[in-house]
Amino acid sequence: MIEPAFILVRPQMGENIGAAARAMLNFGLTRMRVVDPRDGWPNPKAVAMASGAGRILDHAGIFPDLGAAVADCDFVFATTARSRELVKEIVTPERAMAMAREMAAQGKKLGFLFGPERAGLENDDIAHANAIVTVPVNPEFFSLNLAQAVLLLAYEWGRQGSEVPASAMELARTELASREDIQRLAGHFEERLETAGFFFPPTKAAGMKLNLRNMWGRLALTKAEVQTFHGMLRQIAFRLKKQDQADG
Amino acid sequence: MIEPAFILVRPQMGENIGAAARAMLNFGLTRMRVVDPRDGWPNPKAVAMASGAGRILDHAGIFPDLGAAVADCDFVFATTARSRELVKEIVTPERAMAMAREMAAQGKKLGFLFGPERAGLENDDIAHANAIVTVPVNPEFFSLNLAQAVLLLAYEWGRQGSEVPASAMELARTELASREDIQRLAGHFEERLETAGFFFPPTKAAGMKLNLRNMWGRLALTKAEVQTFHGMLRQIAFRLKKQDQADG
Repeated sequence: MIEPAFILVRPQMGENIGAAARAMLNFGLTRMRVVDPRDGWPNPKAVAMASGAGRILDHAGIFPDLGAAVADCDFVFATTARSRELVKEIVTPERAMAMAREMAAQGKKLGFLFGPERAGLENDDIAHANAIVTVPVNPEFFSLNLAQAVLLLAYEWGRQGSEVPASAMELARTELASREDIQRLAGHFEERLETAGFFFPPTKAAGMKLNLRNMWGRLALTKAEVQTFHGMLRQIAFRLKKQDQADG
Repeated sequence: MIEPAFILVRPQMGENIGAAARAMLNFGLTRMRVVDPRDGWPNPKAVAMASGAGRILDHAGIFPDLGAAVADCDFVFATTARSRELVKEIVTPERAMAMAREMAAQGKKLGFLFGPERAGLENDDIAHANAIVTVPVNPEFFSLNLAQAVLLLAYEWGRQGSEVPASAMELARTELASREDIQRLAGHFEERLETAGFFFPPTKAAGMKLNLRNMWGRLALTKAEVQTFHGMLRQIAFRLKKQDQADG
């Protein structure tokens, strides 16, 4: 699978080219193309900003015009914020990357166009594209800079290909308590609370105990935390005993 | 539904607070809280950077410590990049916002914690959270600044609640050709191509015509484009005729 090329069209500030490279690399994208950069190439400010993502700039393709930059692409998406009065399909980033992943899996070469900082892509640029990608933002407030637009598209690419589980428990170097540990802890609490006269009135005791057992069962305590609870109970009981003796 | 509060914990640079406000407002989020900002409050640099999103800062809650900032929250997510050796559920932004939307729909109040620029959240901060959100980035390259982390989380919130269709045709002020228009255009082409001896050899003519009709049927041409095609055909035929007469 060939990953999509992110094509920066007439970018102005080197810092933004470097920031775009970093945004891409966060999500494993490394194929950048640059069309007619305002300040020439190579661009020292781009290199300085790219920092650890400098190799993306080293391998970036530099093109005099957009036609040359997209010549080998099978399908091109243009990212724009505004409607352009061109007859073209407009998709969300989510849909665009679903299409991109499907086409890339079939060996197709894809390009994503990003316009210059202020003006964005011109209609002549967009005419090169098969479809338009627009981030669905607040209709009353749009403020995405070049690197942020690149970041969101790269994120969508990464998200849809991610094998990271949606949810996982960070266990560090510890392990969760077994059900037996939990039952023993629940029993210890019940015993101490019984002694303390907590389960009152007796008609409600069974319900109270059930709720407590359910709570212990639900909490994903570690072995260490279970030991801490046992220790806390013992210590409180010990203090109370001493106090009783003192009071008595 | 109460939208989640984005809580910036000990942010350092005013510019980043302003950029975070803009990132949020792109996706309609307006509830910001700021805990112990390094440069005090209000922060003129934050205001300057926030630009059109300044009202988020005007209404931001300022808190001396994180405990106060999350006191009214029912569920708190901490955004971190690294594993923290704390026993806590780790979720993707996608999963976090699915949980958040579900809880918000039930009237729950949610908070998302974002740490200071360099160090990120400390373990004492994370202890306030119910779960950790980590953006699944390239394991070999992580580079998300504060506003970018805010942007990705805000994007996920917006994406999951968006009513924007995944795909739509931008028709500007024109309209698509009817099927009748398309059939007439296909017929016109067939007629001219027939005259020009295009359908050769005769045994393949039917297949060639089918492929052409299929192409016309697939292309989503506008009425104006259909007229342009008719005009092109007529003009070419007219020229050819004149040439024939001249040659003859």
